[in-house]
Amino acid sequence: MERFVEDSGMKTGLVTLHLQHTSASLLIQENADPDVRRDLEHFFSRLAPDGDPLFVHTAEGKDDMPAHVRTALTAVNLSIPISNARLALGTWQGIYLWEHRLAPHSRIVAAHVIGE
Amino acid sequence: MERFVEDSGMKTGLVTLHLQHTSASLLIQENADPDVRRDLEHFFSRLAPDGDPLFVHTAEGKDDMPAHVRTALTAVNLSIPISNARLALGTWQGIYLWEHRLAPHSRIVAAHVIGE
Amino acid sequence: MERFVEDSGMKTGLVTLHLQHTSASLLIQENADPDVRRDLEHFFSRLAPDGDPLFVHTAEGKDDMPAHVRTALTAVNLSIPISNARLALGTWQGIYLWEHRLAPHSRIVAAHVIGE
Repeated sequence: MERFVEDSGMKTGLVTLHLQHTSASLLIQENADPDVRRDLEHFFSRLAPDGDPLFVHTAEGKDDMPAHVRTALTAVNLSIPISNARLALGTWQGIYLWEHRLAPHSRIVAAHVIGE
Repeated sequence: MERFVEDSGMKTGLVTLHLQHTSASLLIQENADPDVRRDLEHFFSRLAPDGDPLFVHTAEGKDDMPAHVRTALTAVNLSIPISNARLALGTWQGIYLWEHRLAPHSRIVAAHVIGE
Repeated sequence: MERFVEDSGMKTGLVTLHLQHTSASLLIQENADPDVRRDLEHFFSRLAPDGDPLFVHTAEGKDDMPAHVRTALTAVNLSIPISNARLALGTWQGIYLWEHRLAPHSRIVAAHVIGE
């Protein structure tokens, strides 16, 4: 996305990303130490554990409903300004697609860009 | 909202929804099995239970502060691209207004649409 | 931000705010009783406590990883329509920068405004 913005030649604008799924998230988090993402995974696994007997919706397995919960607790939309011809992310911010299901899935992100 | 976009004749653009309240949320979640929304309600009721003695702000009752917490844990803003003359939601995504108070409330959503 | 919009002379539009950090949040919450923000702080301190032995990423201290978790559970982006020449916030909504670290930090918010 950062490369896309740089290549577009836009100086100012707005990028909106929308993940078209209900069991994965778009996350802005620290881009330096991978332990941050591992610790986030551990925290959310403890908060909304797979196999929780609270849930009725278990059609796709023990990780089905916890994945929906983790999505509701985070985000599927992000909107980030373009400033000085680049995405206005902080020094330590990276954009991640966070998969909440146990098995790999193909995921689609819709993007909208406006600017000049 | 989907009908509005289709009727507008726009081909590409961006829809932003903003819920003007602090004890309800805008949620994008599975639109197929209603058990998903029931399980989400149960999960959030366990995570931020009504009547929690932690809270000082109880002016409007036992469900007052838990509703604010559930709002903070979810979202009051959504931004969704318009692509090919329709909202770029995933196949299984629906947009919901999630009421966190026990009594029914009238809620207002502000919308902004840009496109062509 | 409300003053900025009023001074701009715009009648309709969209304001997007993006916080350039991974251990603080942008929050829309009740602007009347400060106990709401105090109760939110207490709830999130209980949910993601400082010093949690679950975490490996503790380079900056016991409040380092809990601050990242609290950020992931809330938001760093907000998009709010401008309507009738003012931000379309609800009567009881205020915009807050929520610091999750124990020590004070300087924080930067990038803003994008479009409208007419």
